[in-house]
Amino acid sequence: MPRIHFHQQLDALKDKLLAMAALSQQAVQAAVDAYLQRDPGLCQYVRDNEAAINLAHREVDEMAYELLAKEQPMAIDLRFILSVIKINSDLERIGDQSMGIARRTLDLLEYESADLPVDVGGMGEVASRMIRTAIQALLDADALVAESVMTMDDEIDRMNRVARSGLIGVIQETPDVTIQALNGILISRSLERIADHASNIAADVIFWVRGADVRHQLSLAVD
Amino acid sequence: MPRIHFHQQLDALKDKLLAMAALSQQAVQAAVDAYLQRDPGLCQYVRDNEAAINLAHREVDEMAYELLAKEQPMAIDLRFILSVIKINSDLERIGDQSMGIARRTLDLLEYESADLPVDVGGMGEVASRMIRTAIQALLDADALVAESVMTMDDEIDRMNRVARSGLIGVIQETPDVTIQALNGILISRSLERIADHASNIAADVIFWVRGADVRHQLSLAVD
Repeated sequence: MPRIHFHQQLDALKDKLLAMAALSQQAVQAAVDAYLQRDPGLCQYVRDNEAAINLAHREVDEMAYELLAKEQPMAIDLRFILSVIKINSDLERIGDQSMGIARRTLDLLEYESADLPVDVGGMGEVASRMIRTAIQALLDADALVAESVMTMDDEIDRMNRVARSGLIGVIQETPDVTIQALNGILISRSLERIADHASNIAADVIFWVRGADVRHQLSLAVD
Repeated sequence: MPRIHFHQQLDALKDKLLAMAALSQQAVQAAVDAYLQRDPGLCQYVRDNEAAINLAHREVDEMAYELLAKEQPMAIDLRFILSVIKINSDLERIGDQSMGIARRTLDLLEYESADLPVDVGGMGEVASRMIRTAIQALLDADALVAESVMTMDDEIDRMNRVARSGLIGVIQETPDVTIQALNGILISRSLERIADHASNIAADVIFWVRGADVRHQLSLAVD
């Protein structure tokens, strides 16, 4: 019964991808908490977690490659495996962006604390919800849920624009917190890019379920 | 002679990817020139070019998917097709980053010209050379040439760090050019990320040629 065996392997691939997704979600959460609590230990945690993400990334890729090499998956199974490869790459980049946030936070900790007009907690929540929902769409093979992720992207784009212009104002009015405000701008941008990756994941789920590439039909933020 | 036909299709896939690479390289060049010449027309060109990139991106993906679906490529051919899918995605993101540069440049044009300590021309040259060399490595199936791309990445990381600290200094000393300097920081960062994508492409070439994933063995910049 080779097909049954094949479907077990597909399930195993999905499980491995879910483990990878959990690591990425953890990275975002820890990076946001590190910023909110000004905690260098959490920054270090994000760094350690990054090694686990890189390992998981390689394992998912290898498993997908093995499946493509040894079986001859057709149509929807093939699309699923290709989607896994792409989702895996977006999850890895979410880890990269989380590392960027942790690095900017460490930078911030060298300076006096400043009250910055950037809602890192709120943006982190929207970004996390987008990743969670995209993964849920993957689990349920639900293109409608995936589409909802892509609309949430507008919200975080707006938050990023508001933060950026507020932080530019801070720099102009109180130049002695320039570095803090600049780090705020970069952290806000990283959260916005994490949301972009969640949108990419949602687009890949839609490609898998419907067999159509929606990536460039909806206008994803590319900044 | 289905295998001969198959290899013709692989060649066609490589040609399509090269066309995609040309569009991405053009985007970087035009975005850098737009900045250097303060030319809104070139910014618009980057925007128009982006539509062509998105179309080419979809075409390469579909062609790769067709090949995987209809043939049963083994070992090195399979690795080649998977590499093409990944390289295609990095090229598309190079286009995204070029759009970001064009957008920041348009932003800059609304303000008085300021003399900023960021070598956009020089960074653009290094980034373009990295893309060109990575594509050359792909054409020649040359892992050593691909490795040389990954060492060039250090150079542009250094340039980005120098630019960032110089531009922070400018903001602190002359707050009335804050927005210009901030745009300089973001453009410098985009060029550094373009170089990261070129490094990713080089890593994919090595994966194709050697069958080993080097991505996380060398420490790519992830900021």
